[in-house]
Amino acid sequence: MKIIILKQDLLEAINIVQKAIMAKATLPVLEGIYIEADEKLKLIGNNFDFAIEYNLETDILEKGSIVINARMFGDIIRKLPDAPVSIEVSENNIVKIECLNSYFEIKGMDSSSYPLPPAYKNDISFTISQTSLKDLIRQTIFAVGSDENRKIMTGSLIEVENGEIKIVALDGFRMAVSNSIIKEDVSFKVVVPGKNMNEILRILETSDEDLTVSLSGNIISFVFNNCRISSNILDGEFMNYTSYIPTKFENVITVNTKDLIDSLERASLITSDDKRYPVKFSINENDMLVSSTADVGISKEQIKIENNGSPLMIGFNPRYFIDALKVISDEEIKISFTSSIGPCIITAIDHDKYLYLILPVRIRNN
Amino acid sequence: MKIIILKQDLLEAINIVQKAIMAKATLPVLEGIYIEADEKLKLIGNNFDFAIEYNLETDILEKGSIVINARMFGDIIRKLPDAPVSIEVSENNIVKIECLNSYFEIKGMDSSSYPLPPAYKNDISFTISQTSLKDLIRQTIFAVGSDENRKIMTGSLIEVENGEIKIVALDGFRMAVSNSIIKEDVSFKVVVPGKNMNEILRILETSDEDLTVSLSGNIISFVFNNCRISSNILDGEFMNYTSYIPTKFENVITVNTKDLIDSLERASLITSDDKRYPVKFSINENDMLVSSTADVGISKEQIKIENNGSPLMIGFNPRYFIDALKVISDEEIKISFTSSIGPCIITAIDHDKYLYLILPVRIRNN
Repeated sequence: MKIIILKQDLLEAINIVQKAIMAKATLPVLEGIYIEADEKLKLIGNNFDFAIEYNLETDILEKGSIVINARMFGDIIRKLPDAPVSIEVSENNIVKIECLNSYFEIKGMDSSSYPLPPAYKNDISFTISQTSLKDLIRQTIFAVGSDENRKIMTGSLIEVENGEIKIVALDGFRMAVSNSIIKEDVSFKVVVPGKNMNEILRILETSDEDLTVSLSGNIISFVFNNCRISSNILDGEFMNYTSYIPTKFENVITVNTKDLIDSLERASLITSDDKRYPVKFSINENDMLVSSTADVGISKEQIKIENNGSPLMIGFNPRYFIDALKVISDEEIKISFTSSIGPCIITAIDHDKYLYLILPVRIRNN
Repeated sequence: MKIIILKQDLLEAINIVQKAIMAKATLPVLEGIYIEADEKLKLIGNNFDFAIEYNLETDILEKGSIVINARMFGDIIRKLPDAPVSIEVSENNIVKIECLNSYFEIKGMDSSSYPLPPAYKNDISFTISQTSLKDLIRQTIFAVGSDENRKIMTGSLIEVENGEIKIVALDGFRMAVSNSIIKEDVSFKVVVPGKNMNEILRILETSDEDLTVSLSGNIISFVFNNCRISSNILDGEFMNYTSYIPTKFENVITVNTKDLIDSLERASLITSDDKRYPVKFSINENDMLVSSTADVGISKEQIKIENNGSPLMIGFNPRYFIDALKVISDEEIKISFTSSIGPCIITAIDHDKYLYLILPVRIRNN
């Protein structure tokens, strides 16, 4: 194998495929990037659960393939000058890397032992802009559960139906739902591991360019530009999340998003994420007292609201509110409360692109 | 005690005095900031070895003093809106903090139990611009030793004599010397703990304003703006560093600083800071081959130099070279070699504001 490629192009490809490579694997080959020079140059990272394939045009002087330790390869390419890089594989899988005056020789690994991901298939598919998908993931990812005993909750539900895509995450204490319109009329419902969704979020760019999401068997793929990301999907039935969303409310308030975040962050300084100490909302007609009490002291703060119902006192883990409010771009939001012990939901005032549900924490009387 | 102060002014003071406070101390009072409202507002952080006092003008409505946990106090002030903050200490050392709609009540500590640093004295002193002192520290701090068994090497020597200040650090493998002119004709020679020098480096600003360095007993003080930093000095005799600087050289080369840094960083990728694998310089008439060999592979790179002497082959821990080269702003430097097993020194071509000495590593023949 022998190729010549611009340093920047190669580095971009490495940075992306590296996200699918385990830092510590049982076999050295699994810590490597698979590189194949044929019609195009193809780089692959694969950790069995998640694979990324990146194709790019370049000068192929000699076809072939090799596996190179991802960390070392990335470090070397990153430090090279901005110039064309020549990569040549000689006998015994020795990889020679040359760029201007710099010369490296490192040990590669036999590509025949590399576990290639299954070939891409496309049984059902739809398109969506990179930006839209990025937003949907960002608006829900924080609510994915981390309890491995409740495996299905460690994933994000992707539900496609009636020209709409919905992403849903829930961890037993809160839920995030986000949706967008798509052009195609396809339908499926799969749960994708949250850690893979997180990597996809980091790879996607804020771009109006379309990407294709496709499903085949238990593999979901995201194809855009030169890149193809494939993830296994989780087995099992996702919770019937719509049944959790209350429809009757005791009162509905509107509040400025930033004011509420700031108040909650200040109240959290006293409670320090200790679940024994919730932040308390005392909701009145035109204002709400946000307060916290803990061993170290107390905090309280009045913020303006509009309340269409009766007064209410309710406690929350402030982190759950802050996580949701931080991904909302609307200046004002609506919070609907069922009771002082029932779930509340956060929604926009003039659209229904997202919904956050949060369970309260019982507060002691004092 | 009752004061009113702008959030930003208070926060700046806290950020600075916090650098002298232990995060985990045996007594809670040592994790606190001492605050005293008298003619001015005074904040003090003290860890016995190092103290910072910060004075600022503000509205003193009631004189008094208190100690407040530094981390909690800083976190609260940081999160407040940009507005005047009222701080009032009531009975039982309860501290009430108010800012617009925000209200906090936290437990303070009795100020009488706080270990105040000794009163400031000024037996010998001189002035230097903040920028100059910052540069001198930055150019030497990385060479301070970390071996607690050789305590004196964990400090920086500050030598003042004949209208000149020199700062020297050495760790047994390399040495950094940096100097600057001062106006006053005073003389002293003290060793300041490296960790305190590091904090001072972080507090100093790039500013032409003068600061006063003064010595009294075993305490050195740095006084500027509203701030007074005092550090204990280390007991013991600092090495007679000038005796280590060779005066006879086998050859002297000039090389582009950035080219050499880039080469060394690339070579380090192969050696990975493993001391068994030095980076080798093969110095010829007009070029130098920078190479490294380790289990993972090899690297080599030719860079242009001017050499006034004979060819030489010598090995180094690349980290020592990179640390020194990174704080040098000259485009080209001079490296003078004594022999393939003796120290080399790095100096500027047209001034003598700094000198770095580096010991070589023996290289195996291959």
